[in-house]
Amino acid sequence: MSQTCRGEHLAVGTEILLGQIANSHARTVSLEFANNGFFIYHHSAVGDNLGRIVEAFRVAAARSNVVVVTGGLGPTADDLTKEALAQFLGRTLWLSEEALRQIEAYFQARKRKMPDENRKQALCIEGGELMDNPNGTAPGVYVEADGVHYFLLPGPPLEMVPMLRNHVLPRLRRLFPHEQVLVSRVLHLCGIGESDVDEQIPQWLAQANPTVAPLAGEGEMLLRITARAEDEDRARALIAPVEADLRRRFSPYIYGVDDETLASAVGRCLTAAGQTLAVAESCTGGGLSSMITGVPGSSAYFLGGVVAYDNRVKSSVLGVPESTLTVHGAVSEETARAMAEGVRNALGSDWGLATTGIAGPGGGTPEKPVGLVYVAVAGAKETRVFRLQLRGSREQIRLRAAKQVLWRLWQALAGTAQPHGGN
Amino acid sequence: MSQTCRGEHLAVGTEILLGQIANSHARTVSLEFANNGFFIYHHSAVGDNLGRIVEAFRVAAARSNVVVVTGGLGPTADDLTKEALAQFLGRTLWLSEEALRQIEAYFQARKRKMPDENRKQALCIEGGELMDNPNGTAPGVYVEADGVHYFLLPGPPLEMVPMLRNHVLPRLRRLFPHEQVLVSRVLHLCGIGESDVDEQIPQWLAQANPTVAPLAGEGEMLLRITARAEDEDRARALIAPVEADLRRRFSPYIYGVDDETLASAVGRCLTAAGQTLAVAESCTGGGLSSMITGVPGSSAYFLGGVVAYDNRVKSSVLGVPESTLTVHGAVSEETARAMAEGVRNALGSDWGLATTGIAGPGGGTPEKPVGLVYVAVAGAKETRVFRLQLRGSREQIRLRAAKQVLWRLWQALAGTAQPHGGN
Repeated sequence: MSQTCRGEHLAVGTEILLGQIANSHARTVSLEFANNGFFIYHHSAVGDNLGRIVEAFRVAAARSNVVVVTGGLGPTADDLTKEALAQFLGRTLWLSEEALRQIEAYFQARKRKMPDENRKQALCIEGGELMDNPNGTAPGVYVEADGVHYFLLPGPPLEMVPMLRNHVLPRLRRLFPHEQVLVSRVLHLCGIGESDVDEQIPQWLAQANPTVAPLAGEGEMLLRITARAEDEDRARALIAPVEADLRRRFSPYIYGVDDETLASAVGRCLTAAGQTLAVAESCTGGGLSSMITGVPGSSAYFLGGVVAYDNRVKSSVLGVPESTLTVHGAVSEETARAMAEGVRNALGSDWGLATTGIAGPGGGTPEKPVGLVYVAVAGAKETRVFRLQLRGSREQIRLRAAKQVLWRLWQALAGTAQPHGGN
Repeated sequence: MSQTCRGEHLAVGTEILLGQIANSHARTVSLEFANNGFFIYHHSAVGDNLGRIVEAFRVAAARSNVVVVTGGLGPTADDLTKEALAQFLGRTLWLSEEALRQIEAYFQARKRKMPDENRKQALCIEGGELMDNPNGTAPGVYVEADGVHYFLLPGPPLEMVPMLRNHVLPRLRRLFPHEQVLVSRVLHLCGIGESDVDEQIPQWLAQANPTVAPLAGEGEMLLRITARAEDEDRARALIAPVEADLRRRFSPYIYGVDDETLASAVGRCLTAAGQTLAVAESCTGGGLSSMITGVPGSSAYFLGGVVAYDNRVKSSVLGVPESTLTVHGAVSEETARAMAEGVRNALGSDWGLATTGIAGPGGGTPEKPVGLVYVAVAGAKETRVFRLQLRGSREQIRLRAAKQVLWRLWQALAGTAQPHGGN
């Protein structure tokens, strides 16, 4: 009779609670579990303190039946994970001669003598078994007690991840054979607010399987569709009609799926069309180029960019007429248009993008407040300029302006109908 | 009578437990607490499930007296943090007309009507108070119950971090006044590795007051000197000799203190010298310009930049001779030199910077492997080119290259002796 896996990840290490290192294992364990149809219901982290680690085990055992612990298996006095679990379970620790020989061999292979303190790494919990660690000195420990399965893994990622895949997940597949598969599909949207989306799909948001979860990003948002089923095909069959409906409603805004970004989606369209891109940036200050070139292989379609912070650069390099700058100002529809067309001509690209605006905190006026941004998309047929009034910090305004102009280019490339409104 | 702060961070969001996003707030909250002399004893994360969030509050309240929660304050049905805390505390939620007006104004500023579901963002917990959020629609909530202080913050980092600094930490300083004042001084180093620093200062690292804590950053590192004393003057008196010794050892690498960044330190030097800057980027792809223009007021000294991804841009806009590109290649000392001098001439700046290299993952060869980067600093007197072999992902190589060239410019501006070696 098999029950459901209720997974929990516990990270042990004071350096995590001091913020000196990120607890990246939490995400790794969650991803590996999800990819195998298992679910992690809790993440927790505790410092190198025996009492608090014991308490963390007490909390975990009360709510989870699979507890994956990372860290605290090292040789030093503040490595206490095994000691804490043994104390919580009221069990003893015993020294595995076999593990000790493996640790000594590990040092011999590196022409070093094993320090005495490494002996404690060969300790195993009464009733448990050791998982060998080909990439380090600390073996893992598996032990079951009162229906809870504990997996103790070393902290270094290059040791932890292989043990998770080679020891933990295979055992879970045996322990929970009828576990359903969990499949997720993520839609990326730009140019529409989370609440505008949610208003239109109350029935999906209320549904249990597949679930549809909105996730607000910076200047964009995600819709995550997650289905549970006996196998992957059935799960995808549950997702398909939901995705189809969401695309019917929001197609002008949906630029990509799963791991795609605005920059990679634009790159995909440019590659497919065999076209090239150049950008002229003022308020985004290089952030737009950086977003585009963050995509591996972008050199195939991105010719380059000009960061025209000073007006002389706008005129000398981009050929923006002095008169345009004096009559309409650097932050204007006319300047944005001239910048986009100017960089397209100067660099000889198929498409030219431009951003000009007031990122703040200073520089705003009643007529041209902080957050006023013009973005332009220049192509062979026409140049479109969009006026945006963005809110937020300097960083937010720069980021959102860059995403807005990429989204407008994506729409032009994808040939999607222009939706009403901007940000 | 003041007791000790026992902090806990609780992240709410199913996307974290599915591993779709990293729980970066845990580290941020820990760092901000540590910098203020407070300590986080537990991290935890739970999904968008009312019952489990309520249980997470029960666990937190039993072991912590300060609980910082991030996420779950959005407008949608699966945003449940306030509802869960109200249920756990047995309190009601009330609608703040003031908050509602602010949210409506937020939408009006975007020329949009507030969707009805955003009304719930104006809900506050009985007996609590709202913290305004200038960067988003979700105000934070502070409420105290049975000696436990709860701070509910929105999930988007650009909204959460300012609220943590402007609302949470000031209140904690009032709630938990240290008998002794805690004063920190942070030195920012570039161009030297953490282990090279550590092995030179074992005595400082072992010392209790002031403490010296090394913190590895991306392409740079920090040394945080923290002293406790009866008053601020005495604390600073404890810090002074330690800082003096660290500066004696590492002065060529120490570009700034406390909140300074490489870009702001360079900006400070340029402003003081009344000089201007222009940059030519290949492998950094706009990241260098973006770093420079991220500093408010940078338009006073930054004229602009050219992202020369395509070789034609290197020659046409920057005037790099075709022969240099064909004979030495785009990734070479000669090209880096020509790019830095070219952009300095083209834009008429006092200083010109250049980066060219192989960020990967593709494009490497045995002679020019991924991570090989040349950075150049061109001034009125001379042009210096530095050959770097950087490690890490595409993103890390781009970031480290940008920081290296800024650091080299800072050295030229600060007139510091050139230390041996690069990264």
